[in-house]
Amino acid sequence: MRSVKIFAPATVANVTCGFDILGFAVHQPGDEVTLKRKDSPGIIIQEIKGDGGLLPRDINKNTASVAIKAYLDHLKLDCGIEIFLEKKMPLGSGLGSSAASAVAAVFGVNELIGRPLSPMELLPFAMQGEFEACGEAHADNVAPALLGGFVLIRSYNPLDVVKIDAPKDLFASIVHPQIEIATKDARSILKKSLLLKDAVTQWGNVAGLITGLIKEDYDLISRSMEDVIVEPVRSMLIPGFDQVKSAALNAGALGCGISGSGPSIFSLSRSSETATKVANEMEACFKQLDIICDVFISPVNQEGPLIIS
Amino acid sequence: MRSVKIFAPATVANVTCGFDILGFAVHQPGDEVTLKRKDSPGIIIQEIKGDGGLLPRDINKNTASVAIKAYLDHLKLDCGIEIFLEKKMPLGSGLGSSAASAVAAVFGVNELIGRPLSPMELLPFAMQGEFEACGEAHADNVAPALLGGFVLIRSYNPLDVVKIDAPKDLFASIVHPQIEIATKDARSILKKSLLLKDAVTQWGNVAGLITGLIKEDYDLISRSMEDVIVEPVRSMLIPGFDQVKSAALNAGALGCGISGSGPSIFSLSRSSETATKVANEMEACFKQLDIICDVFISPVNQEGPLIIS
Repeated sequence: MRSVKIFAPATVANVTCGFDILGFAVHQPGDEVTLKRKDSPGIIIQEIKGDGGLLPRDINKNTASVAIKAYLDHLKLDCGIEIFLEKKMPLGSGLGSSAASAVAAVFGVNELIGRPLSPMELLPFAMQGEFEACGEAHADNVAPALLGGFVLIRSYNPLDVVKIDAPKDLFASIVHPQIEIATKDARSILKKSLLLKDAVTQWGNVAGLITGLIKEDYDLISRSMEDVIVEPVRSMLIPGFDQVKSAALNAGALGCGISGSGPSIFSLSRSSETATKVANEMEACFKQLDIICDVFISPVNQEGPLIIS
Repeated sequence: MRSVKIFAPATVANVTCGFDILGFAVHQPGDEVTLKRKDSPGIIIQEIKGDGGLLPRDINKNTASVAIKAYLDHLKLDCGIEIFLEKKMPLGSGLGSSAASAVAAVFGVNELIGRPLSPMELLPFAMQGEFEACGEAHADNVAPALLGGFVLIRSYNPLDVVKIDAPKDLFASIVHPQIEIATKDARSILKKSLLLKDAVTQWGNVAGLITGLIKEDYDLISRSMEDVIVEPVRSMLIPGFDQVKSAALNAGALGCGISGSGPSIFSLSRSSETATKVANEMEACFKQLDIICDVFISPVNQEGPLIIS
């Protein structure tokens, strides 16, 4: 194979009570990466579109090329690879933009080489790319982008990732207000310690959410989608968060929270119709604050990356 | 019906990472409660055996009579009930002794009356009994004793209890060293706050344990049975804890932890044979410290209370 074009999806990490351990993938938005073999060794970024010139072209700093390099180094391969990256999702939105690029890149190069590794085995290389972008090797965007569905990061050391199939009727409504929050700021405002009683509340909800997802118990999913630790702090960085969340729940969402470290806000609903209504209500709230939004409605993406051509 | 005799099982609460939210029932040990209707109204404790005279005979202080009174008050019934309580398990052992009595009592009176309420509906009355004994209305012993299986207490306010069916081959080995720890002491030594990073580790494990239980993934259960918050503190109250736990894991246990607030230690294993071997090794460790033990081996009890006659 000389060339491949891959779509990798946006992801919602920090799913309410599942801070740092739970994420899921959607069908849109996402990134497209085209990889072409070239005769001389080395990795080159030939083109990046849709990033407004913000992403690094240096192959040692770009999440896609770093991921590919980590993969090729691991397999002791010295191929030549040209990268064409098309950002089809907003940067810094809390939707796993850098993870999508890293996953598309590493999934694509694995296809080019003849698929020697499984998606789960690709995870460490995609995480390398993510590390370059975020300074921390979190897996809660990369893993769902790569594996699809809901993904639990049970442990980072050692890395232990468990795919959890989502109920079929679960739809996400995602609203991205066009304001800026740096991931590092969103992390630095978190308190380093918390009360044991709040931690117990949180892990009760985590256990409930996981049970609800596996057993397809939508009521339990809804009751469990509560975050008493991170959301109360981070939501202060998002103007109108409380109104948007209320609007989503009033429109029938099972639950609502911050996507990743924000500013995007996501809701989960039990049908496409409800998810559409919820998205409209969320967008309307931001409109009242004169904030322009991107709006995405999607079932949970069970498959992960897609080979476009 | 004029008379009924009920067995209610011992329970393991605080199942490793599931502090305050996860418990399970076993088939032995447990308590037996006989209830007889009498013609005049009022509740009387006629007999308590096996408690060494330690339990209160005052109907306003005994966990069984308090639970029955709460039940009868709720239904606005003025029956006369005689209680015969036979403790067939150690008191203060961390095996839900007071919960077993409360559950047997309230389950029994519901049978006497003609079963107007479901087991789930009996929970608040059994919790009243537990409150009398412990000063706190925890549900993580009472709920599994009443419902059987593993039980998740997702939330206390409002009370939200979810039964989780355990894998069929899961066996508990329980060793009760005959030393004393008061529940209140075991709670008071816990730190009131913790680090966010430790909380994340804990809820990753909680999510893994729940997933493992529902999906019957024994390896995942094993990897997830880790408590980085409560066990490191409470285990200091149990002489030989580290050796006993190592012995259990070396003998093939999936995981091992403190039962309730101790001093009992429990392990989970994948077969009856392994559970027996594990129990023997755990007991041997305590013997080396000249500590006498009660030893119990049991599959997870899926049914809860049992009508003996």
